[in-house]
Amino acid sequence: MPKIVRFYETGGAEVLKIEESPLVEPREGEVRLKVEAIGLNRAEVMFRQGQYLETPELPSRLGYEAAGIVDAVGPGTSDIKIGDRVSTIPSFSMGAYGVYGESAVVPAYAVAKYPERLSAVEGAAIWMQYLTAFGALIEFGQVQKDAWVLITAGSSSVAQAAIQITKSVGARSIVTTRGADKKAFLMGAGADHVIVTDEEDLAESVKDITSGNGVNVVFDPIAGPLLGKLAEAAAPGATIFEYGALSPSPAVYPLFPALAKGLTVRGYTLFEIVKAPDKLARGKQFIYNGLETGALNPVIDRTFALENIVEAHRYMESNQQKGKIVVTV
Amino acid sequence: MPKIVRFYETGGAEVLKIEESPLVEPREGEVRLKVEAIGLNRAEVMFRQGQYLETPELPSRLGYEAAGIVDAVGPGTSDIKIGDRVSTIPSFSMGAYGVYGESAVVPAYAVAKYPERLSAVEGAAIWMQYLTAFGALIEFGQVQKDAWVLITAGSSSVAQAAIQITKSVGARSIVTTRGADKKAFLMGAGADHVIVTDEEDLAESVKDITSGNGVNVVFDPIAGPLLGKLAEAAAPGATIFEYGALSPSPAVYPLFPALAKGLTVRGYTLFEIVKAPDKLARGKQFIYNGLETGALNPVIDRTFALENIVEAHRYMESNQQKGKIVVTV
Repeated sequence: MPKIVRFYETGGAEVLKIEESPLVEPREGEVRLKVEAIGLNRAEVMFRQGQYLETPELPSRLGYEAAGIVDAVGPGTSDIKIGDRVSTIPSFSMGAYGVYGESAVVPAYAVAKYPERLSAVEGAAIWMQYLTAFGALIEFGQVQKDAWVLITAGSSSVAQAAIQITKSVGARSIVTTRGADKKAFLMGAGADHVIVTDEEDLAESVKDITSGNGVNVVFDPIAGPLLGKLAEAAAPGATIFEYGALSPSPAVYPLFPALAKGLTVRGYTLFEIVKAPDKLARGKQFIYNGLETGALNPVIDRTFALENIVEAHRYMESNQQKGKIVVTV
Repeated sequence: MPKIVRFYETGGAEVLKIEESPLVEPREGEVRLKVEAIGLNRAEVMFRQGQYLETPELPSRLGYEAAGIVDAVGPGTSDIKIGDRVSTIPSFSMGAYGVYGESAVVPAYAVAKYPERLSAVEGAAIWMQYLTAFGALIEFGQVQKDAWVLITAGSSSVAQAAIQITKSVGARSIVTTRGADKKAFLMGAGADHVIVTDEEDLAESVKDITSGNGVNVVFDPIAGPLLGKLAEAAAPGATIFEYGALSPSPAVYPLFPALAKGLTVRGYTLFEIVKAPDKLARGKQFIYNGLETGALNPVIDRTFALENIVEAHRYMESNQQKGKIVVTV
């Protein structure tokens, strides 16, 4: 019987249990993967804690991103064949379809092939990060050549994806990180400029870098008091995408800069892309192309074995990572 | 010598002085109006108080909107002729070109003809209100048939313009007002629904009216604590336009509804339209057409004589008006 990860109560990383469970047959519209690698996301930490958009029904599986080989298909899944090498697009209920484990059943619409040049570990580090960044920067933000993009929380996998997507369209990134220790990594990862927010004033530094113009697009998962600084750093007509809530403090809406500069502050999540077939199709094409040419290249921070899933979650919560944490199966 | 209005210190309405001043000759790119009517705006109250985007250089004239007859033209103004019946589009510095008085010199680009069927009083009540509403609802908000539009502070002249523009494109308006006393007026002015916020819960009422959907566009000059309610009342993908700062309290950015529903909160002022020739041209055409057909019809609350300008300002600050306050000359 395959090993799967399940939790019986919400709480710290230690609630995650590895147990054997009978192989599940896919129903209509579903396919089953023999999982090779699992990409970890903050969404799973929040789901495990009972603080996610979706509330777990206990006991619950979890996990959005797996790469693997299709080993069974349900009726009505003609596009997918046994033996296909695919990874999953987070577009389903984690409770119903969590992918942490050696085997996972997911909706057929949620799997996509990835370029052969990528390993399974890399395949598990594609869709969440690149689709999230694609939706804000390209689909809605329409970032083009020479635009300035401010990317906060620069070491996260989504920020890495945003840096690469920005570069791939000829725009310029300014990336923030709290401490100086990650600056060299971020420059190496393709950032055009890095601001160390513990040492530098964000808005002043952005003004210096952009010759007083400010940035055209902001891509931020923090919010809280930072939002005011982001509005200061924004150019006239800029859009600030808020895609997370990492700050525990409320954000004051920056009314006066918004009026003076015609700013847009837009709440955004990946669901806006994966629930809209036309947007998802454009995103998949954009990302597949970028991965094939090497313009996009998943940054893997570290891998853990499945039996160390608790340790892997603790590591994610420690915020030491630079790029994606992947569990190998 | 023509009478003009000037103030020598910022402060209450009583700082406004009527004095005689020599007739000014228009310079290059300028035209002079023999003023027939002046439309009053909250911007002038704030300018007079020293609380506007632009700070007055004392002594200062003031005023954005006048209707009149061109009685002199400077060089380089070939589109405008002496005798033209025009009104002014607020697209200039109030300190440099304030229009309160019997004579006013303004940039030639800032005057526009208005339909003959309108009186001068109505002509002074066009561009600020209709262009402001046009920019948010049509140019940026792309309001179309059957959309739901929530319009707050419903008795203001800009809100009246928004109600009419909403109706003119086949969309549906929900209009808010604090007290029940203005409800009948707003229904008569074309609102599809009116919510009395002193008596009803805004978000609940919007849900009832829209069968749970929420509104697609919000047009709000208040901000402050209201912003959270507006986000509750918003449909997925909605845009909330903030075009003023009537609330003295800060607004908390509604992060969680914004994430869950993909909401946009956009700071907006008329300057985004009047400073962009293509947008301004579209706006002028849209409004001229609507005025000609009668789909748009300026609502005049009350007129004052020029000598009662102090009283007119006090009346504006009392918030009793329903529509535009106009000074006749």
